[in-house]
Amino acid sequence: MKKSHRVVFQPEGRTVFVMDGTLVLEAATEAGLTVDAPCGGRGVCGKCRVQIVQGDLPESAEQKERIGAELYEQGYRLACQTRITSDMTIVVPRESRLFEQKILTEGADRATAVQPNVRKVHIEEAPPTLEDQACDADRLLRAIPNGENLEAPIDLLRQVSDVLRESSFSVTAVINRDEIIAVEPGDTTSDLLGAAFDIGTTTVVGMLVDLRTGERLAVASRTNPQVQTGDDVISRIEHTRVNASGLRELQSAIVGCVNDILEELVKERGISVERIYEVTTAGNTTMTHLLLGVPPRYLAEAPYVGVFRKGCLVRARDIGVRIHPQGKLYALPNIAGFVGGDTVAVVLATGMMQKDEVCLAIDVGTNGEMVLGSREWMVSCSTAAGPAFEGARIRFGMRASQGAIEKILINDDVSYNVIGNVAPIGICGTALIDLLAELRRVGVVDETGRILTGSDLPGGLPPRLAERVQEDDDGPIFVLAEKEEAANGRRIYITQRDVRELQLAKGAILAGVMTLLKEANMELDDIHEILLAGAFGNFIRRKMAKRIGFLPQIPSERIRFVGNAAGAGARLALVSRACRDEAERISRHVKYIELAGRPDFQIFFGEAMMFPEVVE
Amino acid sequence: MKKSHRVVFQPEGRTVFVMDGTLVLEAATEAGLTVDAPCGGRGVCGKCRVQIVQGDLPESAEQKERIGAELYEQGYRLACQTRITSDMTIVVPRESRLFEQKILTEGADRATAVQPNVRKVHIEEAPPTLEDQACDADRLLRAIPNGENLEAPIDLLRQVSDVLRESSFSVTAVINRDEIIAVEPGDTTSDLLGAAFDIGTTTVVGMLVDLRTGERLAVASRTNPQVQTGDDVISRIEHTRVNASGLRELQSAIVGCVNDILEELVKERGISVERIYEVTTAGNTTMTHLLLGVPPRYLAEAPYVGVFRKGCLVRARDIGVRIHPQGKLYALPNIAGFVGGDTVAVVLATGMMQKDEVCLAIDVGTNGEMVLGSREWMVSCSTAAGPAFEGARIRFGMRASQGAIEKILINDDVSYNVIGNVAPIGICGTALIDLLAELRRVGVVDETGRILTGSDLPGGLPPRLAERVQEDDDGPIFVLAEKEEAANGRRIYITQRDVRELQLAKGAILAGVMTLLKEANMELDDIHEILLAGAFGNFIRRKMAKRIGFLPQIPSERIRFVGNAAGAGARLALVSRACRDEAERISRHVKYIELAGRPDFQIFFGEAMMFPEVVE
Repeated sequence: MKKSHRVVFQPEGRTVFVMDGTLVLEAATEAGLTVDAPCGGRGVCGKCRVQIVQGDLPESAEQKERIGAELYEQGYRLACQTRITSDMTIVVPRESRLFEQKILTEGADRATAVQPNVRKVHIEEAPPTLEDQACDADRLLRAIPNGENLEAPIDLLRQVSDVLRESSFSVTAVINRDEIIAVEPGDTTSDLLGAAFDIGTTTVVGMLVDLRTGERLAVASRTNPQVQTGDDVISRIEHTRVNASGLRELQSAIVGCVNDILEELVKERGISVERIYEVTTAGNTTMTHLLLGVPPRYLAEAPYVGVFRKGCLVRARDIGVRIHPQGKLYALPNIAGFVGGDTVAVVLATGMMQKDEVCLAIDVGTNGEMVLGSREWMVSCSTAAGPAFEGARIRFGMRASQGAIEKILINDDVSYNVIGNVAPIGICGTALIDLLAELRRVGVVDETGRILTGSDLPGGLPPRLAERVQEDDDGPIFVLAEKEEAANGRRIYITQRDVRELQLAKGAILAGVMTLLKEANMELDDIHEILLAGAFGNFIRRKMAKRIGFLPQIPSERIRFVGNAAGAGARLALVSRACRDEAERISRHVKYIELAGRPDFQIFFGEAMMFPEVVE
Repeated sequence: MKKSHRVVFQPEGRTVFVMDGTLVLEAATEAGLTVDAPCGGRGVCGKCRVQIVQGDLPESAEQKERIGAELYEQGYRLACQTRITSDMTIVVPRESRLFEQKILTEGADRATAVQPNVRKVHIEEAPPTLEDQACDADRLLRAIPNGENLEAPIDLLRQVSDVLRESSFSVTAVINRDEIIAVEPGDTTSDLLGAAFDIGTTTVVGMLVDLRTGERLAVASRTNPQVQTGDDVISRIEHTRVNASGLRELQSAIVGCVNDILEELVKERGISVERIYEVTTAGNTTMTHLLLGVPPRYLAEAPYVGVFRKGCLVRARDIGVRIHPQGKLYALPNIAGFVGGDTVAVVLATGMMQKDEVCLAIDVGTNGEMVLGSREWMVSCSTAAGPAFEGARIRFGMRASQGAIEKILINDDVSYNVIGNVAPIGICGTALIDLLAELRRVGVVDETGRILTGSDLPGGLPPRLAERVQEDDDGPIFVLAEKEEAANGRRIYITQRDVRELQLAKGAILAGVMTLLKEANMELDDIHEILLAGAFGNFIRRKMAKRIGFLPQIPSERIRFVGNAAGAGARLALVSRACRDEAERISRHVKYIELAGRPDFQIFFGEAMMFPEVVE
């Protein structure tokens, strides 16, 4: 087992333990930070610079030139070129973060200028007189630029007169699109909060956002409590079909989760959730149906159609989400039954639809959704990759949480890294990819996915590795940690069946890619860039993923991690009306390819389950 | 007491008892029917023809020529020229009714073509397949012409999939403006109902309307239950100010009344109120505030401003009105604090804003609102005429219901007509005008309003009349019915104080008219037509009203009764989007003149309280 280093990322204070020699970029993504590296980690663009404030500071003339002497002296280094060789404290500045940078680009890029759906206008009006008897609502509307077309809902009308008089006609109007949702006493324009959510099948992430700047003020996440009724969307849809109260239960569960996250987001600021005026959500089609309480039942049976596609703007309290009483919730639009608002958000955040070059975005969650295309055209599909990469259906599989082996290297023996630097409990998805990739390289697993045993093992295999190949009742296994090493006193290993599960999962994703390429009449080389999204995508090591054929065989610098792009897209749709409009355009622009029943997909799938030759 | 005849109007079956010699037109308005008589009752336009199917059929060569021989032989006569000399049954055809005719005028008059806010589209779609995976909402929207911009609220999304499948994708979409409010199985396009309400301070009238034709299917009315907390708007506003739950009480009261009327409207058709898709309401500013639960408190204190002016479109159930769960309620816009949606409705129904000629509309309810103007400009005001004409604050005053003396003639003695042809209980507003007008003519009341007694009475006064001039504790009275004649065994009379109340009321209205004329820099003769609206307006006899100076001194044929124009305007806003838009334009177009504190109004008022010289 290699030496581990403790790395603290600031200003979040997130801590990870990584193997000696790990790139700062990799450690940062492991900590859940999305550092921008548009050159693919080749050290040429200089965008990924971070400041190392504690720990070994490696010297590099090339980096000094790239970064500039002044910053270099202050400890700035390129995250993609700097390896961790000691415990470290590293500051990731805002401008090096993928989406922060995007949102800050005001003016130049229309689509990302901060211009939220919710805005505030402070007005000062004279009180009415016999000469000026305009009613209170008209008095308010006339003071707002272009106010005459705004609507004033009845709840507002019930309060406006007293608010105006109690604050001597100096009030702040809160406007959502074409509706005044609140009138607050005095000038409250400095306070404008929203929240953006990525509602995953497994994990729900929420961010508190300053709508004036687009800045992310706080982040919180929870496991989607719906997992209790099944780890994939199909089992949840099934739950709504067989139980009369199933839909209500699942809706309550996710709404409760969103409310808990909202409470957590505002807690440390000591404010009420009522100060949040709008929420956006990006989720897959099923998650969005469940959130809104719309029955998703026909999604689970051929021809797999949902109830709605377009984005939904609802009053948050109508579905139980607790923010400002007149606050709205905007659920990003879907593309099809199995390509949802989360994928729209990924396309939005990556700006794919504004590019001339053809990109491929892959969002690896419980399902694997992918989109190929450019400004001109886009095609998408969804593969039932299953939750294997999230650790489900794998003997010792687990989520990427404390105690999970998250990285594996094999030389003479196995070395691994454990999240939290504790004794291991199981294996998470990234380590499974590492393990398979390494077992392929040393010849323990053949190209069909068979774990070789006895005389089938390659001749020069180090003895420590050969000893790890053993058998259990179901067949051959490869032992990662003996019971003495493991937290629970049980040895940790991978089975032949586990390898098959992973083959199915990675095969499905690659076959999806191949089908999209065929649909577009393109070759792999025509892809300008692969954008790998999803919390899981953050941690996949490109070389390993390519080695097992999980990612297509294109140069690593053309594979870019975009992190939680779904969450970033939800935030864009929150802070920019133009982005919200673009989300609706994306929903219409992207063509959906149904893989079910396509013979070519089946053929690709059969091929993609195999492992490629290892040539590195 | 003159002989009474029983007249039944069909198809409504409404029965009234009228004095011998009463014009059919007058009897019809007394029965609550608004027969159109644009020539002012001169017998020249031929629009007011009705069919006498039972009773004495008077012959008239002139009418035969006007009507045409064929219809004349079938018993058609002009309502404005034919006097009732026996019991009669009379059919009032739809084309002779003021607003029916207007609504039927499709095409020619853009403003009144039937094109309701609510429409239905029947669609038949193919079920989804793997080749056509459009989601259910998109499938619905694409089948509706220009459907892509329609919104589908969440409540609809929750039901649409099952409705589509249960009815084999043959459904009817119910659309309110830009929103699909319901999807019904099969083809229900033949069923499209709405309801229009005139919400008066005293009386609430509702109509069930076929939105496909604009036809009025049923009418029902109730006393506004808010009268329990006061008979004028000021006392109701006061009630909301001094009681914490006052607003809630008054809102519940009016909503309950509306719901009761809705139930009554649908009852005889054996259908549910959920079949009604939209409701429109015309009420004064205070009534509309109370209906929507918006506090009207600042209406009652200078400078008398309301909370809102614009029309409000709300989900009916949000204010407790029970129609289709997604049905809307549209409250017509106001003009100012004391000129409300009922006046807007009057302007809308009379088409005043589309005319080049200057008209004056007077709506006599508990307040007297009036509007002067044309296409070019309009001015309005509201006079606190008070409820004297509705029988309040008058010793024996009562509403125009069974037992009320409603018509009075004086020759050698007094003769009167009682509603329902029973022994009298009291006097209603029209009879008060008759009585004052007749007492002025015979000289019992002088031009200052004093009831003359003893030697002050004119010399030639018939002895039976002189006997009726008596005294009570407060001063002189004029006895209408001795206790033997009256239902309650108490004599019925008018007091000096009653005369003063009526002087104040009629003076306020006339002074309002004079102020508007002055504001417009016009003379009485410049008024093309006076349009007299309101349930009360129906029954006012023009000659009598002019004699006491309640109406200005212009030729009677230029005074036209338009009946419940507020209700008709609510119906127009229900069946025609163009009319609804026009209502909003009226609300902005009409300038409001505040009479409070205007010295010229005070001077006019002083003069207008006097009675004019009788010259007939």
